[in-house]
Amino acid sequence: MARLVEIHDAADERLADYRDLRDVTLRRSIEAEHGLFLAEGEKVVRRAVQAGHPVRSFLMAPRWLDSLADVLEATDAPCFVVDERLAEAVTGFHVHRGALASMHRTPLPDVDEVLDGARTVVVLEDIVDHTNVGAVLRTCAALGVDAVLLSPRCADPLYRRAVKVAMGAVFSVPWTRVPEWYDALLDLEQRGFTTVALTLADDAVPLEDVVAGLDRVALVLGTEGHGISPRWQATAAHRAVIPMQPGVDSLNVGAAAAIACYVVTQRG
Amino acid sequence: MARLVEIHDAADERLADYRDLRDVTLRRSIEAEHGLFLAEGEKVVRRAVQAGHPVRSFLMAPRWLDSLADVLEATDAPCFVVDERLAEAVTGFHVHRGALASMHRTPLPDVDEVLDGARTVVVLEDIVDHTNVGAVLRTCAALGVDAVLLSPRCADPLYRRAVKVAMGAVFSVPWTRVPEWYDALLDLEQRGFTTVALTLADDAVPLEDVVAGLDRVALVLGTEGHGISPRWQATAAHRAVIPMQPGVDSLNVGAAAAIACYVVTQRG
Repeated sequence: MARLVEIHDAADERLADYRDLRDVTLRRSIEAEHGLFLAEGEKVVRRAVQAGHPVRSFLMAPRWLDSLADVLEATDAPCFVVDERLAEAVTGFHVHRGALASMHRTPLPDVDEVLDGARTVVVLEDIVDHTNVGAVLRTCAALGVDAVLLSPRCADPLYRRAVKVAMGAVFSVPWTRVPEWYDALLDLEQRGFTTVALTLADDAVPLEDVVAGLDRVALVLGTEGHGISPRWQATAAHRAVIPMQPGVDSLNVGAAAAIACYVVTQRG
Repeated sequence: MARLVEIHDAADERLADYRDLRDVTLRRSIEAEHGLFLAEGEKVVRRAVQAGHPVRSFLMAPRWLDSLADVLEATDAPCFVVDERLAEAVTGFHVHRGALASMHRTPLPDVDEVLDGARTVVVLEDIVDHTNVGAVLRTCAALGVDAVLLSPRCADPLYRRAVKVAMGAVFSVPWTRVPEWYDALLDLEQRGFTTVALTLADDAVPLEDVVAGLDRVALVLGTEGHGISPRWQATAAHRAVIPMQPGVDSLNVGAAAAIACYVVTQRG
């Protein structure tokens, strides 16, 4: 059973994990230094714990204790019980969803492990926006993508905002980072995946035609601004496109990813 | 040619249209009272002007004058030239995209006019988030949806944030509000559209199967939280679903709209 610890002083050292959650730069350094990430909201906290991440501590107002009773029951971590004003003073914003938890990061799995048995994989190249990474993970979970690989420069899926946008999908879809960017797509081909890069290149073929009948597919997505790097465009087995109206701007990355994941997961 | 007017005082009355752009409540009342909306960024300003909205004024730093020279050439409205610090003091944020314009709203077109010749229509029910409305409009423009109808409670597509997220698609896709909510779908059926509501209802059929072979289709989308109202679910000709993994959360509204628009616009 978690130890309930009432705290009345916003400066209390034990609340260090929860400081200034809106300060991205500060949070990156705190989270890297201590190997932690934050889960926010009853549902996400529950999923993070169920996924096996060890809990460093919880932080919540008294009224959230009941709904997380089973989660608190199953751990020895401290649960800091504070009023909502104090929670706001520490975190820097009104915690709408009530409960927070500080969790230990665990080592990322190997690519081998993540790809084991996978038929449909999504590969993200340099998507640096946490919201977009979270949104793509949520889409992948909903549509049944088997695994997600991230290039080294992609935003951290365990950053609070990504976890929140993903609605906890970051704990259900197997994902990891590829250790090396340059030959990542060639490596996937060697593992038996047909790599299909979504681009706006002139020679791109409609995605639906490209993936029809393929067995193992790795769908490669980049940012809407820069698209996919020349290296990855050159090393992908296919360059595919979502057919669009002439003269309009491209789809945003969330919309393009959703359509592409749908087409790939529904392929014959 | 627009009259260039240098302004050095953030309190200058002539800047009233540009005050406190982040204060949603204030902006709603200012914009309703004066029948105006704001366009932000060179591309969006240009599209708003091209769409025929009369310009009340422009606001920009000197370095943006050149790139909008042709637009300024074609109007008699004043162009307030300010330095970037003053722009920030007036608007309440750093105007990354440089140029702003205050535009007159024009009367919304009739439903008849918007539907004229349309084969694929999207109907939004009570999507109150400006970002989501903008994102759906952008998707509709990219995929070739012919028209968009909004229920009376949907967020304003001409609100600055919606216009920005839509990348100006609000000026290219024909759209209007339905005058009346209760019988809106029955009215569409009478106009020859098959209404297809995207839901998570138990009796829903995969969207791809529902729309195959249909001529005129009105795809009905609601919010992810509440879905579509019982009235609209009951009056839609079909209830359709995007096939998802069991036990996962639904797609977010932007992702669901993107997939649904893709499926409907690609129907045989």
